[in-house]
Amino acid sequence: MTSGVLVAFEGIDASGKSTQARRVAAAHDAVLTFEPGDTPLGAELRRWLLDKSEPMSPSTEALLMLADRAHHVHHLIAPTLASGRSVVTDRYLASTLAYQGYGRGVDLDALHSATALAVGNCRPHLTVLLDVPVDVADARRAPEASDRFESADTGFRERVRDGFLALAASSSDPWVVIDGTAELDVVDAAVDAALASLAWPQ
Amino acid sequence: MTSGVLVAFEGIDASGKSTQARRVAAAHDAVLTFEPGDTPLGAELRRWLLDKSEPMSPSTEALLMLADRAHHVHHLIAPTLASGRSVVTDRYLASTLAYQGYGRGVDLDALHSATALAVGNCRPHLTVLLDVPVDVADARRAPEASDRFESADTGFRERVRDGFLALAASSSDPWVVIDGTAELDVVDAAVDAALASLAWPQ
Repeated sequence: MTSGVLVAFEGIDASGKSTQARRVAAAHDAVLTFEPGDTPLGAELRRWLLDKSEPMSPSTEALLMLADRAHHVHHLIAPTLASGRSVVTDRYLASTLAYQGYGRGVDLDALHSATALAVGNCRPHLTVLLDVPVDVADARRAPEASDRFESADTGFRERVRDGFLALAASSSDPWVVIDGTAELDVVDAAVDAALASLAWPQ
Repeated sequence: MTSGVLVAFEGIDASGKSTQARRVAAAHDAVLTFEPGDTPLGAELRRWLLDKSEPMSPSTEALLMLADRAHHVHHLIAPTLASGRSVVTDRYLASTLAYQGYGRGVDLDALHSATALAVGNCRPHLTVLLDVPVDVADARRAPEASDRFESADTGFRERVRDGFLALAASSSDPWVVIDGTAELDVVDAAVDAALASLAWPQ
């Protein structure tokens, strides 16, 4: 049986990645999922991760994200791909490198190594980065939607955005960077063009 | 101010390590702690980790253990040591290497690297391994006290015991291996002799 395709959408909050992930999953009959939190254990971890009232070190945050990912891979992503269905995930391994590595300063080499532990051979066939400047994202965001990450300072979100761009430029996995500030139909077309080359199961 | 001393007791279940940890902490006015689970987040993680009803991959298990440790270090161990008090912990970084690495087969290099992420510069001043053969430990254990690790097969516990011995032989941190099958007063004396060289705060 042909294995499914794994596509990850990445970007800062309000970059448009969730909209694209939803659209692409529907178009390709793929399972739409997200991180952190799309398993029973993950939902519990997400509550801890996004709850601003529980102070947490950057390393703890990173390791909880990676535990969530390992569980997500083992219980959902890997079996779905093996069954021949594709998976579209809203955030994946690059988010930990961008947020906890570039954003919070956790050692990048150690994070790369721990990330490999979490995903095994479930590397994305394509990572699509929806890139938008932080001020554009800020203007789009609802002011009340504020968790631990959304409420971080602008400097943090600048580092995360720059981190995503650095990862796209240096990763050995395939990436495409799409200008998320363009009109929606232009973004749609750019995403579709990038995905056209993948071996989607028929 | 002089920093406190960090001592880790390690071994398989029923090796006698908890008894020794309690005794040593009392003797040196040290904070007695344990892993996994000695923080609010840790207690939640411990529930997931020891609950046999939730299937979990070895990588997830390892990363949750490491997240628990990172939180434990940040919230309890590092501040206690900095305040000048010593810490005696019942299990620490070697347990993840022995149980998830040697026992479950998670990649040891990746685990070493992820462990470094969790503990930072909070390496133990001494790791005391209470070594007992698995059949001796089995004979000591209450049959009803059975969590995910205690109920694992004998082969698993043999690999964990051998893993601890391999770590003691190869670690760049200071270790001492004590025969946990000896009479209790002999074990007490061996532990006290090993700890006498440490720079306990006065």
